[in-house]
Amino acid sequence: MKTAVYRRARFNAAHRLHNPVLSDEENAKLFGKCNNAHYHGHNYVLIVKVVGELDPVTGFVVDLKWLKELIKEHVTDRFDHKNLNLDTEEFKEVNPTAENIAKVCYQILRKHVGQELELQVRLFETENNYVEYPA
Amino acid sequence: MKTAVYRRARFNAAHRLHNPVLSDEENAKLFGKCNNAHYHGHNYVLIVKVVGELDPVTGFVVDLKWLKELIKEHVTDRFDHKNLNLDTEEFKEVNPTAENIAKVCYQILRKHVGQELELQVRLFETENNYVEYPA
Amino acid sequence: MKTAVYRRARFNAAHRLHNPVLSDEENAKLFGKCNNAHYHGHNYVLIVKVVGELDPVTGFVVDLKWLKELIKEHVTDRFDHKNLNLDTEEFKEVNPTAENIAKVCYQILRKHVGQELELQVRLFETENNYVEYPA
Amino acid sequence: MKTAVYRRARFNAAHRLHNPVLSDEENAKLFGKCNNAHYHGHNYVLIVKVVGELDPVTGFVVDLKWLKELIKEHVTDRFDHKNLNLDTEEFKEVNPTAENIAKVCYQILRKHVGQELELQVRLFETENNYVEYPA
Amino acid sequence: MKTAVYRRARFNAAHRLHNPVLSDEENAKLFGKCNNAHYHGHNYVLIVKVVGELDPVTGFVVDLKWLKELIKEHVTDRFDHKNLNLDTEEFKEVNPTAENIAKVCYQILRKHVGQELELQVRLFETENNYVEYPA
Amino acid sequence: MKTAVYRRARFNAAHRLHNPVLSDEENAKLFGKCNNAHYHGHNYVLIVKVVGELDPVTGFVVDLKWLKELIKEHVTDRFDHKNLNLDTEEFKEVNPTAENIAKVCYQILRKHVGQELELQVRLFETENNYVEYPA
Repeated sequence: MKTAVYRRARFNAAHRLHNPVLSDEENAKLFGKCNNAHYHGHNYVLIVKVVGELDPVTGFVVDLKWLKELIKEHVTDRFDHKNLNLDTEEFKEVNPTAENIAKVCYQILRKHVGQELELQVRLFETENNYVEYPA
Repeated sequence: MKTAVYRRARFNAAHRLHNPVLSDEENAKLFGKCNNAHYHGHNYVLIVKVVGELDPVTGFVVDLKWLKELIKEHVTDRFDHKNLNLDTEEFKEVNPTAENIAKVCYQILRKHVGQELELQVRLFETENNYVEYPA
Repeated sequence: MKTAVYRRARFNAAHRLHNPVLSDEENAKLFGKCNNAHYHGHNYVLIVKVVGELDPVTGFVVDLKWLKELIKEHVTDRFDHKNLNLDTEEFKEVNPTAENIAKVCYQILRKHVGQELELQVRLFETENNYVEYPA
Repeated sequence: MKTAVYRRARFNAAHRLHNPVLSDEENAKLFGKCNNAHYHGHNYVLIVKVVGELDPVTGFVVDLKWLKELIKEHVTDRFDHKNLNLDTEEFKEVNPTAENIAKVCYQILRKHVGQELELQVRLFETENNYVEYPA
Repeated sequence: MKTAVYRRARFNAAHRLHNPVLSDEENAKLFGKCNNAHYHGHNYVLIVKVVGELDPVTGFVVDLKWLKELIKEHVTDRFDHKNLNLDTEEFKEVNPTAENIAKVCYQILRKHVGQELELQVRLFETENNYVEYPA
Repeated sequence: MKTAVYRRARFNAAHRLHNPVLSDEENAKLFGKCNNAHYHGHNYVLIVKVVGELDPVTGFVVDLKWLKELIKEHVTDRFDHKNLNLDTEEFKEVNPTAENIAKVCYQILRKHVGQELELQVRLFETENNYVEYPA
């Protein structure tokens, strides 16, 4: 049987929900106050789950210090204190909904986590709203 | 791969654990102080999980504002500040254990969430006790 | 300079807000859904603060095991899984608002905590509403 | 002895730390990544404390439903999903540090809370940073 | 469809990460400050998940009071206020990583939970690091 | 009116409650399982409060990045992943109760925080037990 390990990280960013292929009216209708042209922001909480076999020598699935640094280098240093729509390549053309942010975080991390390991991310946008990818 | 979205809601209610087909002695033995004839109560926390495909236009699985309103209209407005045993149809003949409350919340919401979407509810009765349906 | 120690405890109870000297209409108007005749309930969280001098031998203000037992014996065993309006002497004629519950908890504990020690209680009714006595 | 009541509320906003009387270099040096020209954001948590005498008829210091609505009308509806620097009058010329946001929330609410009541606000910018005004 | 019930418990223990088959240098390199010869410690949070069919008479999967006592008798009384490396049989030759502690808790509880029930444990070592067995 | 700022930090350490001037029997009686000769441990949470005047240029009481680094350099780097009784000068002859740890943290930080600023520390030993110095 496999074991899962989880690491929690945080980043604070501004965003607006906006799909440039839609009209302003459609964006306003779909996204309401989340479409505010001047942006709003969140304290995002990211939880990264890695599933694999226990290494009998270390007693680790993966070294959580390594996972902590991986998340810092590739995700939180990239997004923390940024405007997701303006300051990042990832959301120039992708609407930064919690769902899409989780998917992007997954895709970034997937390249750096060995293929023998399963990966999943959970992203909290608020204490009441959160998402998971893949489900 | 699919994405999961979660919405947290809360309601405060009174209940007692009691199965009317059992004798008072059996109820007292099975349910202990939770069988108190005058009721006790909880701050229930309900987390609703919906799993589906990401809509490429909105970047949503479902609009979380819609899910928030759905939970409010069909669950929390129905149960908040109520006595579950006395004030609700659902628990007139169903023992309001956390397990049964979760199942009832699921059954209520299932009718309003499209069949292409998976649904699961988690219900916290206390910070130490919680349940999930379906598992 | 003095030191404060805090102990957190919890109890789950039913109540309704109702002042028997008022008419039903006045109670309904003042207390809204909290006046529901069949009661509702909460997971109350009680935090007891004791302030005093550090004992140089033990390094304690008071033994927190003693404080834990004191709260259990005099407060949480008394109120847990009870209907505050029906099952307790304290709230037979006192409206069990969070403010009054905190004050009653303070008055109960005050008798058992040495007069050289300051005492204060904080009571959470929900994650968004809490009170403190004395302020 | 008086009683304190507390109400917690939340709002999500974008901001940047920037004092327009300083040069860009000075702003960058003083505020670091919080000075990002494109803004970042937070899930602010606001806790409002009101201290007064218990009303013997209601068992309330103030009606927490009233306090909830007051905070919503005057604070969270004003700041939620806004860019504090661009979308609000209060922070056009005031640097939106947590300290200043707390002070502004206090000043707004102070006008609507009776002078016989003491008022204090606590504002969480992150789970690790928070402020209180007045201390 | 089955239902899951969860029970949360806590224990405070000292440990060090150390594999006696490795040299001191290798242990220091692998485990860093977690290898401190004098130990450090944690407030471990254990969440036990049991999945099964709802009993139509009780409305329970299993009685959570029974599960609470089971965890106390077999896990938290065994590990609380202990040095995992020195005071327990389980970790005399097993490196007490969070992964291994979770696995040991699972193996202990598995013997006492009926085979018709699925079992899983989650163990928090810190608010940012946690593991789950089986995944 | 002054403003308070708070910074939260964490460290994980082993300790035992033991006063070397007392006999083993007295220590065992006073401190119970906390006296375990092989130590146990905690995830300590430290909250540092600084009270002062708002700087009109920065909108800060003190720069929270500075306070974060100060706590890291002088407190958490010193105590994290340590055995407080064996690895630290501060608790060689001082019983590491939560009260004494809070007082030591205060005394360490007091030297580095300007005398025009008030200082207070709160230390959580568990989610249910915490202390504050000075009260």
